[in-house]
Amino acid sequence: MKPNLREECGVFGIWGHSHADILTYYALYALQHRGQEAAGIATVDECEKDIDVLRGQGLVSEIFNESEIKQLNGRSAVGHVRYSTTGDSTLLNSQPLRVRLKSTSLALAHNGNLINAGVLRDNLEEAGSIFQTTSDTEVIAHLAARNPEKNIEDSLIQTLRKIKGGYALVILTPEGMYAARDPHGIRPLCLGTLDGAPVVASETCALDTVGAEYVRDIRPGEFLVMDSKGRDSKRIADADSRALCIFEYIYFSRPDSNLAGQNVHRVRKKLGEYLAMDHPADADVASGVPDSSISAASGYAEEAEIPYEMGLVRNRYIGRTFIKPEDELRQVGVKLKLNPLTKVLKDRRVVLVDDSIVRGTTSRTLIKLLREVGAKEVHMRISSPPYRYPCYYGIDTSSTGELIAANRSVKEIEKIIEADSLAYLSKERVAEAAGATTESFCTACFSGDYPVEN
Amino acid sequence: MKPNLREECGVFGIWGHSHADILTYYALYALQHRGQEAAGIATVDECEKDIDVLRGQGLVSEIFNESEIKQLNGRSAVGHVRYSTTGDSTLLNSQPLRVRLKSTSLALAHNGNLINAGVLRDNLEEAGSIFQTTSDTEVIAHLAARNPEKNIEDSLIQTLRKIKGGYALVILTPEGMYAARDPHGIRPLCLGTLDGAPVVASETCALDTVGAEYVRDIRPGEFLVMDSKGRDSKRIADADSRALCIFEYIYFSRPDSNLAGQNVHRVRKKLGEYLAMDHPADADVASGVPDSSISAASGYAEEAEIPYEMGLVRNRYIGRTFIKPEDELRQVGVKLKLNPLTKVLKDRRVVLVDDSIVRGTTSRTLIKLLREVGAKEVHMRISSPPYRYPCYYGIDTSSTGELIAANRSVKEIEKIIEADSLAYLSKERVAEAAGATTESFCTACFSGDYPVEN
Amino acid sequence: MKPNLREECGVFGIWGHSHADILTYYALYALQHRGQEAAGIATVDECEKDIDVLRGQGLVSEIFNESEIKQLNGRSAVGHVRYSTTGDSTLLNSQPLRVRLKSTSLALAHNGNLINAGVLRDNLEEAGSIFQTTSDTEVIAHLAARNPEKNIEDSLIQTLRKIKGGYALVILTPEGMYAARDPHGIRPLCLGTLDGAPVVASETCALDTVGAEYVRDIRPGEFLVMDSKGRDSKRIADADSRALCIFEYIYFSRPDSNLAGQNVHRVRKKLGEYLAMDHPADADVASGVPDSSISAASGYAEEAEIPYEMGLVRNRYIGRTFIKPEDELRQVGVKLKLNPLTKVLKDRRVVLVDDSIVRGTTSRTLIKLLREVGAKEVHMRISSPPYRYPCYYGIDTSSTGELIAANRSVKEIEKIIEADSLAYLSKERVAEAAGATTESFCTACFSGDYPVEN
Amino acid sequence: MKPNLREECGVFGIWGHSHADILTYYALYALQHRGQEAAGIATVDECEKDIDVLRGQGLVSEIFNESEIKQLNGRSAVGHVRYSTTGDSTLLNSQPLRVRLKSTSLALAHNGNLINAGVLRDNLEEAGSIFQTTSDTEVIAHLAARNPEKNIEDSLIQTLRKIKGGYALVILTPEGMYAARDPHGIRPLCLGTLDGAPVVASETCALDTVGAEYVRDIRPGEFLVMDSKGRDSKRIADADSRALCIFEYIYFSRPDSNLAGQNVHRVRKKLGEYLAMDHPADADVASGVPDSSISAASGYAEEAEIPYEMGLVRNRYIGRTFIKPEDELRQVGVKLKLNPLTKVLKDRRVVLVDDSIVRGTTSRTLIKLLREVGAKEVHMRISSPPYRYPCYYGIDTSSTGELIAANRSVKEIEKIIEADSLAYLSKERVAEAAGATTESFCTACFSGDYPVEN
Repeated sequence: MKPNLREECGVFGIWGHSHADILTYYALYALQHRGQEAAGIATVDECEKDIDVLRGQGLVSEIFNESEIKQLNGRSAVGHVRYSTTGDSTLLNSQPLRVRLKSTSLALAHNGNLINAGVLRDNLEEAGSIFQTTSDTEVIAHLAARNPEKNIEDSLIQTLRKIKGGYALVILTPEGMYAARDPHGIRPLCLGTLDGAPVVASETCALDTVGAEYVRDIRPGEFLVMDSKGRDSKRIADADSRALCIFEYIYFSRPDSNLAGQNVHRVRKKLGEYLAMDHPADADVASGVPDSSISAASGYAEEAEIPYEMGLVRNRYIGRTFIKPEDELRQVGVKLKLNPLTKVLKDRRVVLVDDSIVRGTTSRTLIKLLREVGAKEVHMRISSPPYRYPCYYGIDTSSTGELIAANRSVKEIEKIIEADSLAYLSKERVAEAAGATTESFCTACFSGDYPVEN
Repeated sequence: MKPNLREECGVFGIWGHSHADILTYYALYALQHRGQEAAGIATVDECEKDIDVLRGQGLVSEIFNESEIKQLNGRSAVGHVRYSTTGDSTLLNSQPLRVRLKSTSLALAHNGNLINAGVLRDNLEEAGSIFQTTSDTEVIAHLAARNPEKNIEDSLIQTLRKIKGGYALVILTPEGMYAARDPHGIRPLCLGTLDGAPVVASETCALDTVGAEYVRDIRPGEFLVMDSKGRDSKRIADADSRALCIFEYIYFSRPDSNLAGQNVHRVRKKLGEYLAMDHPADADVASGVPDSSISAASGYAEEAEIPYEMGLVRNRYIGRTFIKPEDELRQVGVKLKLNPLTKVLKDRRVVLVDDSIVRGTTSRTLIKLLREVGAKEVHMRISSPPYRYPCYYGIDTSSTGELIAANRSVKEIEKIIEADSLAYLSKERVAEAAGATTESFCTACFSGDYPVEN
Repeated sequence: MKPNLREECGVFGIWGHSHADILTYYALYALQHRGQEAAGIATVDECEKDIDVLRGQGLVSEIFNESEIKQLNGRSAVGHVRYSTTGDSTLLNSQPLRVRLKSTSLALAHNGNLINAGVLRDNLEEAGSIFQTTSDTEVIAHLAARNPEKNIEDSLIQTLRKIKGGYALVILTPEGMYAARDPHGIRPLCLGTLDGAPVVASETCALDTVGAEYVRDIRPGEFLVMDSKGRDSKRIADADSRALCIFEYIYFSRPDSNLAGQNVHRVRKKLGEYLAMDHPADADVASGVPDSSISAASGYAEEAEIPYEMGLVRNRYIGRTFIKPEDELRQVGVKLKLNPLTKVLKDRRVVLVDDSIVRGTTSRTLIKLLREVGAKEVHMRISSPPYRYPCYYGIDTSSTGELIAANRSVKEIEKIIEADSLAYLSKERVAEAAGATTESFCTACFSGDYPVEN
Repeated sequence: MKPNLREECGVFGIWGHSHADILTYYALYALQHRGQEAAGIATVDECEKDIDVLRGQGLVSEIFNESEIKQLNGRSAVGHVRYSTTGDSTLLNSQPLRVRLKSTSLALAHNGNLINAGVLRDNLEEAGSIFQTTSDTEVIAHLAARNPEKNIEDSLIQTLRKIKGGYALVILTPEGMYAARDPHGIRPLCLGTLDGAPVVASETCALDTVGAEYVRDIRPGEFLVMDSKGRDSKRIADADSRALCIFEYIYFSRPDSNLAGQNVHRVRKKLGEYLAMDHPADADVASGVPDSSISAASGYAEEAEIPYEMGLVRNRYIGRTFIKPEDELRQVGVKLKLNPLTKVLKDRRVVLVDDSIVRGTTSRTLIKLLREVGAKEVHMRISSPPYRYPCYYGIDTSSTGELIAANRSVKEIEKIIEADSLAYLSKERVAEAAGATTESFCTACFSGDYPVEN
C-alpha cells in the first residue's frame, strides 16, 4: 500500500560455487520485494572471458526457466531485480549490465542512485563515449573503461572515487567479483559464506534462503575483492559517518532480514511500541495496514494492551496487470485490494498503524472505508516521521507528486485525511528502535539534511 | 502451507446488472484463494439464447484481458475458479460448463462433490448419453437434459433431488439464474444485492469486493430462482440437519468472509484463545504458520499473555512454476518459502500454531527449522482436531496419502514431528468458536460421521 | 488468393505403430494446407481405455512441442487440422473430438459436412442429449452412443447410415480404428501402410511424408475396420455413383497428392493445356496466380508455345495476424501479398491463369495491378467452369457473399473484372483432365446438380 | 534449400512521411526473406532528440502488434531484419542499434560485414570505449562518437572512410537520414520516393510494397543525405570499380526485385537458358529445386524444349521450430520439406536445376529421392559456378564447413552426389545474364579474387 515509494533494486553475487547460477535464481526470489519489473543473472567461469547473461521483464517466476538457467555457464554469478519502465528500453536498461572492455568483461549489478551522473555523462560523451542506456550503471562502466590503471580492481576503485551518491554494487569479472558500498553506506549490502564461497546480497534474507551463513555487512566505503586468492578488503574512501537509509527498516526490507545486526521485524514491532508510548489513543483495537505495518501494529497493541486485530485483509492475487475499475464501478476500487472486517471494526475505536504517509490519498481512503463499516473512531499512527523531502539515493520518489507533509502541520494532515487523531513517531525514536542514534542513519527524507554533498 | 488440503472451487453469479461481466471478474479475484488453476466467466442476455463463455488455465490475472471481457455480452453472469489437472482435459473440465439442451442453454458453476456421480453416470451412459469431461457437473447437466419436466426450473429441481453430496451450484440460463445448496448446506453459498440485482457467491468477501450488500446465506436444500419477476425460494429437500463444512472456518475461507454470520478471522482468533486455555504451554513467544494460522496465533498470544511474534516469514512470490531445488541443494528447500527469524526465536520457548496436520512432514520440517535457528523448545498447537478421515464433499484429499492421524495417537504424532509438546483443539471447541454446536457442522474429517448417506 | 473458398479439414490415422504420435504430427504438417486454425492429435493404447488428446489453435508448428507429444501415450493415433472461428468455442469445436460412451471411448476426426445434421440434432435433443459444441461431429458421436448395437463397429455403421452429406471420417477407439467415406466419396480419403501398420489420410502427400506406401483410396460407402486382427472392409451403403469433389483437383489438394490415382499437379497442368486449346489468346506471355495456378499456367504456356513467366510474386511471410493497412495506405494493399513484375509484364499481352473466380474482386484488382505496371492486354483464363452454386459438403462458402457467376454471363463478368478477354474451362474438360467423365465427380458448384438427396 | 548460405540482413528507411512507422513495418515484410530471426523499427521526429525503437526476435508477424507500432513517434523511420543467434545477446545484437552521442542520437541499420572490425575494435577499446554487443554496427557508432568533426554528417563520412568491407547502411538522426554503400557497392541499396518523401531499401520489392517509385540505386561509395533541405549526394570514396555481390542475382534477392536495373527473375530465367545452351542433357523433363531455382528451371525447359514440371513440392508450413525427426524416423527427413512427384518423375530422364551446391549433402539426398520414385536419370545443372571461397562481405558461410567444390573437380562432385551428369554455369555467363561483364561483380566466392584489400 505504498504505491509511491519504491526501492529501486536488489543485488546478489556468489564467487566460486558449483551451483552459482541456480542459487542466484533462488536469491532473486528472496529479494523480489525490492524490484518486480525486471531481473537478470550473469555468470562466468574463472578461465573464460565470456560472461553469460539472462535477463527479462517481469517476476523471477516469469522470466527464468530451467533449461535456460542450465545453459548458463560458470561457477560465479551476480543477479539483480529492479523496477523499470515499459518498452524496448526496459530490457536494455535491465541488469546485470554486461560490457566488454579492452582488458576484460564486466557484469555490473547496481542498487542506488548517483547524484553526479549527469555531469559525468556529459564529460564522457564529450570525450566520445556513446551510451546505449539511460542508467547510472553505464556511467560507471564507461568511467572504468577510460581509467588508465593497470588492473581492473584499481580501475574500479578509481572510478568509484569519482561517483557520488548512494550505492551497493556487485561487479563480476572472469578474474574476480567485487562488492562496493558508498562511503556513507546508504544502501545495504551484506557478506555471507556458503560451502566456502563468498556471497554478497542486499539483504540477509537472501543469505538465509540459499543457506549461506552471515559474516558481516560490507562496510561503508569498502571495496571487497573476492577471487581465487580469497577475500581482500580495500577502501574507496576514508571512513566516513555512517548513514544507512532509515527507510530500509521502516518499509523496504523484508521483516526476516537483519540490517546492521538488527532484525527488521523486531525494529518495526518496537516502532509500534514506541508509538503506543508516545502517542497513546483511547481505543478498543489496533490494526495495521498490510503487509508492511503488521509488525508495528502488533507492537502497538501489546504495549497499549488492547487486542491486535486483522482489520483489513489484503488480496494476495491482484497482479500487476489487472483491469482497472472504471468510474461507474468506484465501489470496487480499494476493496479489491484491501477489505475491511466489519465484525472487527464495527462500533469500535480503532488505532490504524501505517509506516508512512506519502500523498495522503491512501490514508484518507482507508479511514473512510473503516468508517463505512462502522468504526466509531479512527486514530492514525505512523511509525516514522513526516516524509517531507525527496530521496536522491535510490528511492523512486518520481511519482510522489506533492508530498502531503512537505509544507503542512500534523494537524493539517489529520484534517485532510479525516482521522480522529494523527501522530507520527520521532526520528529519534526510530533510530532508538534500530539500536542507534540518528547520526547513524540517512534521515534526509524527514529532515532535508542530505549526507552527500552535491 | 497446506499443500495437501484443497478446496475445489469458488462460484459467483449476478442477475441483471449492466456491469455483470466485469463485476464477476472482480469477484473471481476475491475468490481466487478457492482455486488457482483455472477460471471462467459465462454471460447471457435475457432475450438471447446464446451464452458466452470465457475460460482459461491459471490465475484470474493471467486468463482475462480487458478486450476479451468487453466482448462478452449480457447483463447476467456466472463465474468460477477451480483446481484442476494438467493437459488438454483441464480446459474441457474447467467451468462454467456450457451446454445446449433442446429447450435452452445452461452455464453451470459448481463447487463440491457428488458421492453418487459414478452410478448416475453409468445409468446415463447406459441410456446413450456421452461424456466429454470427467466432472460431476456434466452429470448434473445430463440429468437435467433427460428430465421430462416442462420447464427448466422443475427439471433442475428434479435433477438435484437425484444427486447426493455436498454442493453449491449457480446455474445461468437466458430465462433466469438459479442458486442451489445441498440439503445439509455442506458447501457455503450466500446471497447479496447490488443496485437491485441479486448476487450469489461462495463467500461474503466477494460480495464486499463488488460492493454488494449481504442479504443472507442460501439455505440448505434451497433452490433460489432469480429472474425478471424477482426472487423465488423453492426447496430441493425438506429441511435437514445443517452440516456446514467446519474446515471453511479453520482453513479455507478468507479471514474477511463471514459464514453463517460468523467472521472467519474472529472465529480463528477464538480458536487460538481456546487453544491457550485448553492446552497452555510454558513458552516465551507465540507464532503462527503463515498465512492461515496468523489469526489463531495472535489469539493464543493474547490469551496466554505472551508476545505474538512473526516467527516465520512467507515469501509471497513463489509461483506455481518455480524451479524445484535438486537434492544437492536441500538447504534451499523450505526456506525459499518460509524463513524463520533467528532474532525472534533464538533461545526462546516457542508455541507454533498451525490449523491442521495432514501428513506431518511439513510440521516436522518446520519444527526442525525452528530448532536450527536456536529455538529452545517448540510446542505445536493445532487449531482443530486430528484430521483422520477423507472428505467426500469437495475437499481434495486425493494426494493426502497417509493421514498421519488416521491411526496414531497424539503422543505418537508428537514424537514423529519431534515437537516438545503437541495438542489439538476439540471439535466441541471449534464449534463453540463458530457460535454453535457440533451438530451444525460436518465434522466427518475428524469423526468419520458422514452426514450424507451413501 | 482464394480467401473465400476453404476446405474445412484434413484427417489422418495410424493403427499400431511405435511412433504413432510423432508420425501423426508430421502428417498434420503435410495436411496443413487443408486447415490452419486448429489442430489436434489423439492417441490410445490397445489395452487401455483412456484416449489422450492434445489440441490447440493455430498452426501445427505453434501448437505442439516435443515434451507434450512425448507425454501422449499409445501406439495408435488420429490427427486433424481445421478452420474454425475465434473465442472459447474454437477449442471446444476443435478435433479430434473425444467422448466417453458406456462401452468405450472414441476420438473422432472428421472432414466434411452433414446436410441432415439439424434434424438429427433436434431429435437427439428431444430425447435428452446435450450438446457442448456446434459441430456435426458431435451429432455423429451422440448417434453412436444411442445405438442399440452390441459392438462399437455395428453402432458406428448404423450411425453412418443415418447421416447424409459428404464426409471422410477416422475414428479411434482402444479396440480398433475405423475409416469411413460417404456413399458418394465426395471428400477424399486414402489408405496406406507403414512398417505393416495401416495408415489413412485425406491426401497421399501425408502418406509420402511419413514414408508410408499407398495402397488404395477408401471406397465410397466403405467402412474400413483396422484392428489387431488386420483390416476388414464393411459397407455403409450399397455401391453408389462416385462423386469426388472436383475442386480437390482444381484448388484444394496439394500438387504432389494423387486423387483416384491422378496426380494433382499433372491434372492442373492439363487443365492449362486444355484452356490454351479451347480458349487461345493472342498473347506474349502466360502467368499464373500463385500458388494454386502455377501448374495450370505452365501448361497453358507450353501448349500455346509462349513463354511462361513469373508475373506475380507472392510474399510467403504474410501471416494470419498482420496489421491490415488502413484506408490512407491503399497502395500497400494487394502488393503486400502479390507483387507484379514490371520487367516481365510491361508492354506485353498477358494471359493470366487462375483456378476460379468467386466474387470477382480479386480478379479485378489483379488485372488493374497488371495494367498499372504496363501490361498492354490482360486475358483472364480460368481452369474451371463458373462457380455458381454453394457447396453443402465441406467447402466453406459461408463468406462468399454474392457469387459473381451466380446470375451473370461470362461477358458480363469480363466487363466487371475489366479483362480484355475472359474464358472458363468446361466441366467436361476438367473431368477429362482428371481422367474420367463428369459423372464421376461432384460438380454441384458449377451445375447445381447435388449428388445427395436432401 | 540453401541452409548454409545466408544473407545477413535487409534494411529500409523513410524520411518525412506521416506513416513512416507502419510503412517500415510493411517494408520489413517485403524484406523478410533477407533475415528471419530478428527485426526492428526505429522512428524519430525532426524536432525531438529521442529515437523510439521497437525490436524483437522472430518473424515480423510475430514481433510487432498494432498498439506498439502506434506508440512509436515520428515522421521518419529505419527498419531492419536479420539473422542472429539465440539467447539474451540476440536482442542486444538486433538492430536498428540506437546510441546516444554528445551531440545527437543515432539509429543504425546495417547490412554487410566489415573486414577490419577487429582492428578498429581493439583500437577503440584501447582508448576506453566499451562494447555491449559483438556487432560491427557498434564499431561504426563508436568511431562516429570519437570523431572530431563539427557535424554528424562529416563525422559519419570520416567514420565510413575508416571501415573496409561490404555494407549498405541507413542511419537515422533527428536532423536527417543518411544512406551509404561501400565503395564497391557489394551489398545492394536503392532509392525511391513516396509522396515526396525519400525511401531507401535493400531491394526494390520493398519500394513496390509500400507504393514508392524507384529512383535509382545508391551509388558505390555514395553517402546520401536526406533531410528537410532535400537530398544531397556526398562521397565516401572516389569512384571505384563496381563489385555488386553476384549471389544477390543467383539466390538472395526476391525474384520481383530489380538490381542495377535488372529483374532478378528474368536474370535467373536466362541463367537457366544459358545452362541449357552450354550444358544440354538428353532428358524428358526439367525441374527446379523450390523456391529459388524455379525461374532457372523454367528457362532451361523453354530453351531445351522439354516440359517444365513441378518435380518437387515444398511444404510451406515447416517453421523454424518443428520437432526434428529422430534417427528411427529417417524416412520422414527430407520429404517433410520436399516431396517428389512420382507421376512426373517415374521412368523419366530428369534435369534438376539448382542455384548452387554448398556441401553437396542436399544435392545427394535430392538425387537419391528422385531415383527412389523412379527417375531413370538425374542430370544436375547448377545456375552458377562452383562455390569455392568464403565470403567476407555479408554472407554467412560460418556453417558451411567444407565447401564441396573447394578442392574438387566437377567430375569428383558429380560422383559424390551420384548424379548422371553435373554441370555448372560459368561466371561469364552469369554476368552476361545480369547484363554486364564479370568486372562489374564481386565473384570472389567463385574465383577467390576479393575486391576489397585487407
